[in-house]
Amino acid sequence: MKMGNRIYNVVIIGYGGMGSYHVQLIEPIQQLAVGGVYDIVDYRMELAAAGGYKTYESLDAVLADQAVDIVLIATPNDVHKEIAIQALQAGKHVICEKPVTITSADFLDIVEVAKKENRVFTVHQNRRWDEDFRIIKDMIGKKTVGELFQLESRVQGANGIPGDWRQLKAYGGGMLLDWGVHLLDQLLQITDSQIESVAAKLSYILGTEVDDGFTSFIEFKDGLTAVIEVGTTNYVKLPRWYIKGTEGTAVIRDWDLSGEIVTRNPDVAHVEPKPIQAGQGLTKTMAPPSEESTLKFPIEKIPAAAESFYQNFVSAIEGKAELAIKSEEVHRVLVLIETIFEAAATKSVIRRTI
Amino acid sequence: MKMGNRIYNVVIIGYGGMGSYHVQLIEPIQQLAVGGVYDIVDYRMELAAAGGYKTYESLDAVLADQAVDIVLIATPNDVHKEIAIQALQAGKHVICEKPVTITSADFLDIVEVAKKENRVFTVHQNRRWDEDFRIIKDMIGKKTVGELFQLESRVQGANGIPGDWRQLKAYGGGMLLDWGVHLLDQLLQITDSQIESVAAKLSYILGTEVDDGFTSFIEFKDGLTAVIEVGTTNYVKLPRWYIKGTEGTAVIRDWDLSGEIVTRNPDVAHVEPKPIQAGQGLTKTMAPPSEESTLKFPIEKIPAAAESFYQNFVSAIEGKAELAIKSEEVHRVLVLIETIFEAAATKSVIRRTI
Repeated sequence: MKMGNRIYNVVIIGYGGMGSYHVQLIEPIQQLAVGGVYDIVDYRMELAAAGGYKTYESLDAVLADQAVDIVLIATPNDVHKEIAIQALQAGKHVICEKPVTITSADFLDIVEVAKKENRVFTVHQNRRWDEDFRIIKDMIGKKTVGELFQLESRVQGANGIPGDWRQLKAYGGGMLLDWGVHLLDQLLQITDSQIESVAAKLSYILGTEVDDGFTSFIEFKDGLTAVIEVGTTNYVKLPRWYIKGTEGTAVIRDWDLSGEIVTRNPDVAHVEPKPIQAGQGLTKTMAPPSEESTLKFPIEKIPAAAESFYQNFVSAIEGKAELAIKSEEVHRVLVLIETIFEAAATKSVIRRTI
Repeated sequence: MKMGNRIYNVVIIGYGGMGSYHVQLIEPIQQLAVGGVYDIVDYRMELAAAGGYKTYESLDAVLADQAVDIVLIATPNDVHKEIAIQALQAGKHVICEKPVTITSADFLDIVEVAKKENRVFTVHQNRRWDEDFRIIKDMIGKKTVGELFQLESRVQGANGIPGDWRQLKAYGGGMLLDWGVHLLDQLLQITDSQIESVAAKLSYILGTEVDDGFTSFIEFKDGLTAVIEVGTTNYVKLPRWYIKGTEGTAVIRDWDLSGEIVTRNPDVAHVEPKPIQAGQGLTKTMAPPSEESTLKFPIEKIPAAAESFYQNFVSAIEGKAELAIKSEEVHRVLVLIETIFEAAATKSVIRRTI
């Protein structure tokens, strides 16, 4: 064993869909080992035990166990804060599922404890590693479509809200606090600009007490407009990503990375197109540009990120790298979410620097 | 010749793209004949003469000609009003291109003169006859996707604003006053509900003094949200129509009527789907619904409208039918356009009953 190749013992708190998924993800990481599981629901403990994992009798038992290095919190959202603070105070490093807390103030309380206890604390914003997002971010950095001025990021399903605590307000349910957290976190990674204004509408088509989706329009100081949309009542999807720049448009339609990039051909002078018949009228404006005046490119895969989420967490514990998911970033997303709730509730455009 | 089969003599004022298009459309109409053309630009008069049409020396000459029954105005937008009023006062019936006027107040002035002179006056909202629109309106009426709660209507091109007066503010240029008029007019035909609030953003990507596109979010009192969008810098198009109802979603992608309708299968109980891998995470919410739990239908063509725009105009002159394009409807679209300009200029949500 090389110097520094210490194995860190992770205990998973909450063994639902996400908790058991974390177990699968952690297994292949060289410096991490799943040392046990705790869940308040008996059958989940039985599942964990059947899977060969040590089960703890209580959260206190986890925290009292000196062999535990890292606590990973995959419970409903409402109890993240208390578990995180207790774990940090017990000397554990902590990974928490998103949304880390329901309010930005609650999050700052955790950050304060992490600082005081000198423990590493981060949030599982795993979708920063999604290939579709990384390709879009790369394109924007390389100005593949020129200067970016419009970004539309959508996830749309037709299955409603999952039939669990995600339908309940007290547990931090609803889609803004679910997929919304990912899409907004990704958005804030795409530009350095500050937010200037936020408008939003939550949807309550399914009659749940929490939003079953939302649309938010976010204007940045540099002129970028972002449309962020989550829907759970969409039987046909709009594209996952649609970005417009001064030189072209790119679309990624789905997780399979289908899509294309179409740009102006800089070598061909603009030719006003001939009008086409469109419905009961002519249009020159909406005629397709001539074949030779545009260039079409496929969506190309890009190399994997240097470090995975978990590898980065280990590096941060060992002081070898900064956390990929920084507290300031997590806090900014939470402030944005609060602003979206406010904009929707007041049916107004909130002008606020974020 | 049968009783009432009188032929009406139409003179076209403005022989640009739209004026010459009207000539083609009017030729096949049994009770209409193009009796001549007037344009302030010499070469257009030469084109009209070369096409075998009588040319007039001036607008006054057209209006003084007792043989002229109908004046069709296809000039830039800024002079519609004065020509319309003069023509009505000269005893002509009038068809005017859209937008009929830049302001709703100007339009009311024309309506007053038309009433006083007892002449028929209408606006060429030809896109009410577009098949894509008529299919969508029909679907909504039949509740093909259940109760409608979201409607997205977009036209997107990559050719910029046409290189003429449409780029100039003084002439009533810009895309809100161009394609916007059609999309908003169609929208107001789709629901009986009143508008509750309007938010909007105009785009100025091309650096013109007028908008090169816009997005508007319109909330109706019955809960419908409409997204109306026109773009001239979109190298990839989003669908022409995207409608969501309580039972499903329908999309018409383009003028070719490609698209589909996907609805919940009422005969199959909802089955929570299995999580799928999407990017670097699992999602149950965004997993496609199971094959058997949805129904898919093609977009079907519908029979042509009973009367064309021009036939209806003749019927209205002869007192046999109401005008298809009514003054109250045209006025409401103009008030909505003014509200969109106001919402965009003030960067706020305008709560106003329209």
